Amino acid sequence: MSDMIEEVHAANGAFYAALESRDLDAMGAVWEHSDRIVVTHPGWPMLRGWARVAGSWDAIFRNTGYIQFVLTDELVTVVGDTAWVTLDENILQSAESDQLSGSKATSVNVFVRDQDDPAHWRMVVHHASPVAGDG
Amino acid sequence: MSDMIEEVHAANGAFYAALESRDLDAMGAVWEHSDRIVVTHPGWPMLRGWARVAGSWDAIFRNTGYIQFVLTDELVTVVGDTAWVTLDENILQSAESDQLSGSKATSVNVFVRDQDDPAHWRMVVHHASPVAGDG
Repeated sequence: MSDMIEEVHAANGAFYAALESRDLDAMGAVWEHSDRIVVTHPGWPMLRGWARVAGSWDAIFRNTGYIQFVLTDELVTVVGDTAWVTLDENILQSAESDQLSGSKATSVNVFVRDQDDPAHWRMVVHHASPVAGDG
Repeated sequence: MSDMIEEVHAANGAFYAALESRDLDAMGAVWEHSDRIVVTHPGWPMLRGWARVAGSWDAIFRNTGYIQFVLTDELVTVVGDTAWVTLDENILQSAESDQLSGSKATSVNVFVRDQDDPAHWRMVVHHASPVAGDG
């Protein structure tokens, strides 16, 4: 079990690394490319399927100059070939101006073991929401 | 597979029925009673564990006069003994005044098959977030 938790922890870390480096290829390697995947960015509507998910990351990366995540209260749970990670995202970012601003979101990330590559877990859900009155 | 999808769909329906009827006992029957469960209500911080989850429902039920959900774009995915449901919540509710107000949230609900009662699935994550500019 602890190996699996480590694998999922690594997959979750790769997700935030791709996000911080605004690297769409790295983000593509994190996700399962299927119709059943879902992303909900803070305040956004739910988007289904790899094409829409990829398009949203492309738009976010093009509009983000700098973004850094400090993850707190992270918990990984594995049940069979599925896992979910819950955590708080403490976010520092710049937009069009050079001003840095802080915000906080809370997130659930769901992963499924890749049947063709069993040591790797692919993201199937990322749902992040703003936490009121924080940041 | 379609039996399992039906079972998860029923568990998800029981969750919204408990919420609409503001019935804490029915809500208790929906959830797994463990430390690994998580609820994030729209705009709230993440709350972990059955005691905090139950406390949040109790607070919501005491402050809600009427609440009705119309669920749209619902998709159930089952992988082994875990399942997740993604959907949009179209919410009509009254608070302290008699005025009804509409809002929209998008949600991911994760369920795990009950090992002692295999036809039943218990909620382990409910993460709902407000959708900006809607409702």
